[in-house]
Amino acid sequence: MLRSCATRLRALGVPPARRPGAVWRLFSSEKIIPKDYGLPNPSWSKDLRLLFDQFMKKCEDGSWKRLPSYRQSSTQTLKNFQTRFVDPRFMNEEQMSKAQQFSRSLEEGLGFEYALFYNKVEKRMVCLFQGGLHLQGVPGFVHGGAIATIIDVTTGTCAFAEGVAMTANLNINYKKPIPLGSVVVVTSQLSKTEGRKLFISCTVQSVDEKTLYTQATAKENPELLTLPLYFRSSECGLNHPPHLT
Amino acid sequence: MLRSCATRLRALGVPPARRPGAVWRLFSSEKIIPKDYGLPNPSWSKDLRLLFDQFMKKCEDGSWKRLPSYRQSSTQTLKNFQTRFVDPRFMNEEQMSKAQQFSRSLEEGLGFEYALFYNKVEKRMVCLFQGGLHLQGVPGFVHGGAIATIIDVTTGTCAFAEGVAMTANLNINYKKPIPLGSVVVVTSQLSKTEGRKLFISCTVQSVDEKTLYTQATAKENPELLTLPLYFRSSECGLNHPPHLT
Repeated sequence: MLRSCATRLRALGVPPARRPGAVWRLFSSEKIIPKDYGLPNPSWSKDLRLLFDQFMKKCEDGSWKRLPSYRQSSTQTLKNFQTRFVDPRFMNEEQMSKAQQFSRSLEEGLGFEYALFYNKVEKRMVCLFQGGLHLQGVPGFVHGGAIATIIDVTTGTCAFAEGVAMTANLNINYKKPIPLGSVVVVTSQLSKTEGRKLFISCTVQSVDEKTLYTQATAKENPELLTLPLYFRSSECGLNHPPHLT
Repeated sequence: MLRSCATRLRALGVPPARRPGAVWRLFSSEKIIPKDYGLPNPSWSKDLRLLFDQFMKKCEDGSWKRLPSYRQSSTQTLKNFQTRFVDPRFMNEEQMSKAQQFSRSLEEGLGFEYALFYNKVEKRMVCLFQGGLHLQGVPGFVHGGAIATIIDVTTGTCAFAEGVAMTANLNINYKKPIPLGSVVVVTSQLSKTEGRKLFISCTVQSVDEKTLYTQATAKENPELLTLPLYFRSSECGLNHPPHLT
């Protein structure tokens, strides 16, 4: 659809529009500021906006911090990854630059709408999540894989706040199907560490906390992929995870 | 992007293009034939095409069967689901008709490219999978949630071949990161039944079977959502699952 639209516009001599939300170029300095997808947009329901405002209030005393969220990693990050880890048979430099963060790859309102908040003292990550119409599994409900994705985003980012991490195990109990279009709260909590391994628990609940939709545990093992040191995030939210949100 | 493209085309007086792959309308009978996404397209790599051809050969004697795969459920299926299960606070009839199968919601080549084959005697489902550039987690590799999704699709469809099913547990061990753009083989096998509950094992391997990327188990419990009887699929592949592929 995108390609066909672009082709038809080109055929009509119409210049290409700026890609929505990809980057904002400041012509005075040519500095590129990527769009932060963790902020409200018109597709957010009243429930999601209310929750977001509540958590932003909690951020005022510094106990909680909102984490920004991007569609693509920085050019430098990609270059470093490509040099150190990526097999050129599968991905060249041009392809790397076109890759997008899975949880941000669907258009506004159709996929994963979410905002992440972190409490450093409690080692707790909260994700306010609204599942769009293109996340469907059983008709009317969010796909099990989409639920796994938002859990992986939340637990993975929670682990990343402690340092380098990569998911080694995800054990998910689906208790009740989540209605498409509804807002749920995903809460993850660092429960144990064993050497460099991290153990994290996670729940997916309704906004009123009366319904437990999903329960999960995650193990994070940094040895799965030894990330470069410049990704260590001692101050989560300032030096945010480049790949998980 | 879609909206902005459409708006610009409308402003230029250009009639809307047919949505790619959504449906083919046969004007003689007005019968709508949905596009089958489980067939090769130009984004498929040589590896994926070769594997697909190998499995199509296996289908010739009837031991294996290729399963079709759609982006949307039929109108009747949606109506039935809406009446029986869907809370109108979250989804009305119009929204239901716009919902899309999560694993087919990204554009051709950018998301989940896969084909499913089922061996009824062995109760084994094989998914040939190529992860597109918009499934990224760690730069250069497939997101853990996208891996969970293709596992859920494969195990869920394997369970569905036995009758009504819905995922109750997914336990995934990520052993090695999967390079973006590579082709892997997801194999699931029904290992045990307990009453109406089904237990399924799953592996994600490289094409040459030398690399085990992921190992998983799934439990399917039909009591999570009591599907209407007309979804029972005693002859998998003919009466294909309406929602999982």
